[in-house]
Amino acid sequence: MNQDRFTRGQQELAKIHGHIGEGVMAELNTIAPDFARLILEFPYGDIYSRGVLSSRERQIATIASLTTLGNAPKELRAHIQGALNVGCTRQEVVEVLMQMAVYAGFPAAVNAILIAKEVFAELDQRT
Amino acid sequence: MNQDRFTRGQQELAKIHGHIGEGVMAELNTIAPDFARLILEFPYGDIYSRGVLSSRERQIATIASLTTLGNAPKELRAHIQGALNVGCTRQEVVEVLMQMAVYAGFPAAVNAILIAKEVFAELDQRT
Amino acid sequence: MNQDRFTRGQQELAKIHGHIGEGVMAELNTIAPDFARLILEFPYGDIYSRGVLSSRERQIATIASLTTLGNAPKELRAHIQGALNVGCTRQEVVEVLMQMAVYAGFPAAVNAILIAKEVFAELDQRT
Amino acid sequence: MNQDRFTRGQQELAKIHGHIGEGVMAELNTIAPDFARLILEFPYGDIYSRGVLSSRERQIATIASLTTLGNAPKELRAHIQGALNVGCTRQEVVEVLMQMAVYAGFPAAVNAILIAKEVFAELDQRT
Amino acid sequence: MNQDRFTRGQQELAKIHGHIGEGVMAELNTIAPDFARLILEFPYGDIYSRGVLSSRERQIATIASLTTLGNAPKELRAHIQGALNVGCTRQEVVEVLMQMAVYAGFPAAVNAILIAKEVFAELDQRT
Amino acid sequence: MNQDRFTRGQQELAKIHGHIGEGVMAELNTIAPDFARLILEFPYGDIYSRGVLSSRERQIATIASLTTLGNAPKELRAHIQGALNVGCTRQEVVEVLMQMAVYAGFPAAVNAILIAKEVFAELDQRT
Repeated sequence: MNQDRFTRGQQELAKIHGHIGEGVMAELNTIAPDFARLILEFPYGDIYSRGVLSSRERQIATIASLTTLGNAPKELRAHIQGALNVGCTRQEVVEVLMQMAVYAGFPAAVNAILIAKEVFAELDQRT
Repeated sequence: MNQDRFTRGQQELAKIHGHIGEGVMAELNTIAPDFARLILEFPYGDIYSRGVLSSRERQIATIASLTTLGNAPKELRAHIQGALNVGCTRQEVVEVLMQMAVYAGFPAAVNAILIAKEVFAELDQRT
Repeated sequence: MNQDRFTRGQQELAKIHGHIGEGVMAELNTIAPDFARLILEFPYGDIYSRGVLSSRERQIATIASLTTLGNAPKELRAHIQGALNVGCTRQEVVEVLMQMAVYAGFPAAVNAILIAKEVFAELDQRT
Repeated sequence: MNQDRFTRGQQELAKIHGHIGEGVMAELNTIAPDFARLILEFPYGDIYSRGVLSSRERQIATIASLTTLGNAPKELRAHIQGALNVGCTRQEVVEVLMQMAVYAGFPAAVNAILIAKEVFAELDQRT
Repeated sequence: MNQDRFTRGQQELAKIHGHIGEGVMAELNTIAPDFARLILEFPYGDIYSRGVLSSRERQIATIASLTTLGNAPKELRAHIQGALNVGCTRQEVVEVLMQMAVYAGFPAAVNAILIAKEVFAELDQRT
Repeated sequence: MNQDRFTRGQQELAKIHGHIGEGVMAELNTIAPDFARLILEFPYGDIYSRGVLSSRERQIATIASLTTLGNAPKELRAHIQGALNVGCTRQEVVEVLMQMAVYAGFPAAVNAILIAKEVFAELDQRT
């Protein structure tokens, strides 16, 4: 059963983050392998795989939350990329981040938008 | 032009919050009337009215943000109701709040879900 | 296997919170039963049951974190009680909360100490 | 020397909060007397008494910070009253809180303004 | 009318940040031009231009808030510079940041003071 | 008496941080010497030296708090090192950080664990 959660988690991770997710997992694996496993099992295996919301809606909620936290730029970067991977347009991503100015303040929104700018620039360089 | 923003803001406020939004505005109006006006003009008139995202997606982002903040129970209550008003199901609202456990921690998610429970109970009592 | 996690989680919950933990679970169960189950499985079944740290040390870490968050008074109350249940003295609990003035500011520490005062008063009334 | 800090702290506390400050100190004193003493010694005795900024400017900074924290309504209430005590007008207090919408988001500003409204109403009732 | 807000915003931005503000605006402009415009219109055009408080008092409130947030070092840097531009002394800026140790904790205050140190050093190098 | 607090603070600082603590103090000393002194006097001289909790338990509380704040990586780094200095094992440190996923969310825990990884790697390089 835990194996199911782990496998479901790997599938969700791959769907949202592609190969990049594996890198973070590998980085965590050398210091806290149990925690790397729990990340696959709980957020990805237990939560993201539940359906009810579309992958697109879940990424909108996640980038809203990470922008509000304001102290997790690496995760925000990963989930901006993830939002694009599951079907959000760049304009939609920026729109969510702009809306966060209302709830989390302008610095949170500005910094998130500048992170999105970097993500988009990296994507443009790859192609 | 500002009149346009104000009018657009009133329309967005009515769409999301119905008559309840007017109450908060009236409460603010006696102490900080300029701020009451700015709330209609900026969050509702400038941001919510921009299109790009659906009203439903915007409310998902907002309840994700307010759950993450964890210190704005009145606003969360208003936007859980707002999410239902623009077409989210109760199950979808709860699902967004559950997902926040991953990013903002379990206490934030639990407290948001208990607020949703109160909102749903009030709605059931009215009918 | 998940059954194991659930059972381990129930045992940890009982050890830390006694019968009071069941009340919160019951309250969540009517609105988000899957989330109630996940709380037993992940925080209690996956994390608290890991050993490595003593129950006492884990509750010290938890009340430090909840004091720092500053917006989860119900959880802080439950874990102050939990800290006493697993062997911390009242003086030790207050000492952790005082130390948080350094990292999270005086308002966070003061409010946490006033919550501890309420918990201690309730315990005194029961006896 | 510590006696000096304690005495300076008492004077600053009285200047900012009047007799109300003594109530909070008394409440803390029964549970954490050392912490009550440290509050007089450090924030009031070491920091507020330093000069450099006017009492008025210090209260502006404090209500800005407490509004930004968003989870310390009792302290915010005390320092809104304190700001009035050291010479801020009601309009100036509300103006600081409004400005916080920019940095801490609208919910933080709205909730702070509604607290100011309560403080002002209590003052009006006393006269 | 919006043109008025925009123009007022530009004037406030120039008064507080000098030419440096234009750089951030230009950076945002390539990714989210509407948001760049809204920053001029709302924080600078609607809020900072309201009078009531002096520019000096407004910057004191802002650096207090940004220090409390603790996750917006670029904005803090810009407003420490802004505080100096509108008449605060270096000593006064540091004094506000020190006071934040009381409300937001020592790490927030220490990190803000080290940012102020960098701002002051850059200013000294220019002359 | 203040001299006592200062001396006690120096001893606690040395016990927890070794020679590294002196570096931060020196850095602060050039910009805000009074604040550098207050850090020795209040957190280290007044709080850490109180006994009641073991040094080990105090560092557990501190790294829990700093992980929860999520915006003080330098302080977290210093106190992870400090936790090891007063007798925590690496595994115990990581275990506290993992537990914070429950209260402060996964991004906070992941980022703290990656900081611990860097601290451990630096220690390994020195030997």
